Amino acid sequence: MITREEQQEAQAYAAEQLAATGIVLTAAERTQIEVADFGLGELRTTGLMLFVYVNTDRYCAKELVLYPLQMCPEHRHPPFEGSPGKEETFRCRRGTVELWMDGERIGLRPGEQLTIPPDTLHWFRAGDEGAVVSEFSSASRDDLDVFTDPRIVRAPQVEP
Amino acid sequence: MITREEQQEAQAYAAEQLAATGIVLTAAERTQIEVADFGLGELRTTGLMLFVYVNTDRYCAKELVLYPLQMCPEHRHPPFEGSPGKEETFRCRRGTVELWMDGERIGLRPGEQLTIPPDTLHWFRAGDEGAVVSEFSSASRDDLDVFTDPRIVRAPQVEP
Repeated sequence: MITREEQQEAQAYAAEQLAATGIVLTAAERTQIEVADFGLGELRTTGLMLFVYVNTDRYCAKELVLYPLQMCPEHRHPPFEGSPGKEETFRCRRGTVELWMDGERIGLRPGEQLTIPPDTLHWFRAGDEGAVVSEFSSASRDDLDVFTDPRIVRAPQVEP
Repeated sequence: MITREEQQEAQAYAAEQLAATGIVLTAAERTQIEVADFGLGELRTTGLMLFVYVNTDRYCAKELVLYPLQMCPEHRHPPFEGSPGKEETFRCRRGTVELWMDGERIGLRPGEQLTIPPDTLHWFRAGDEGAVVSEFSSASRDDLDVFTDPRIVRAPQVEP
């Protein structure tokens, strides 16, 4: 659970980082930035801000924004409804990000990218300047993500 | 057919426009910018510069760059190999672009986007400041595009 204040702060940070990357969002879009704490209540350490441009039953494109040293915990995108699971390409736009996939560490700087096969365990963490990362993928079903940490709840809950 | 000089000029223009949009390409990537004149030999009027980030058998992401008032001529993405054809989302990043789809005109400014269903005729033209447009889509098979103008050859040819 995150507080309204945490949510608004994180949305403002993400909007500012996207703007600094040259990415224009409309006023309505800025309010749609998702703030995920994965149910752990330690947003600045473990969490992620997301803006989804489009997610059809065929493809998806998002921007991911991370606070300095913020981590998105280990997970995989399992097969569903005849699909082998989500395949995704991360392209670093600003700051730096470290990804771990199959136990291997891959560092990405702006202009560098990596494709993660379906159903493959991975996690990532921003460097000390935070990060903006574009994600291009097949159809996205965040509700089906399988996290290694059993305490994790993917759908964000904001205090009423 | 375009000349080497036209190709290099267009690549330099596209790289400069992408950089001005905040989009970082590596040095190797800058040389991979595709310059398409659609075989008409009037690049500044009818043509398109493209940079492909990724194109798997499931999804694709590109940047499109247009000279001021440059047009990408009417075409559709037909069904192939069990796919209903390419579905694509255009998001304007810089400048302006006008799209015509099913006879309707849609103007896009930075932060505005439009999704074009598979197998649907469309064409687009940049405004007088040129344009940078992100394209998110299902798998891309440019070689299968069907253009209304029978003179068009999609694969760029550069003078030897």
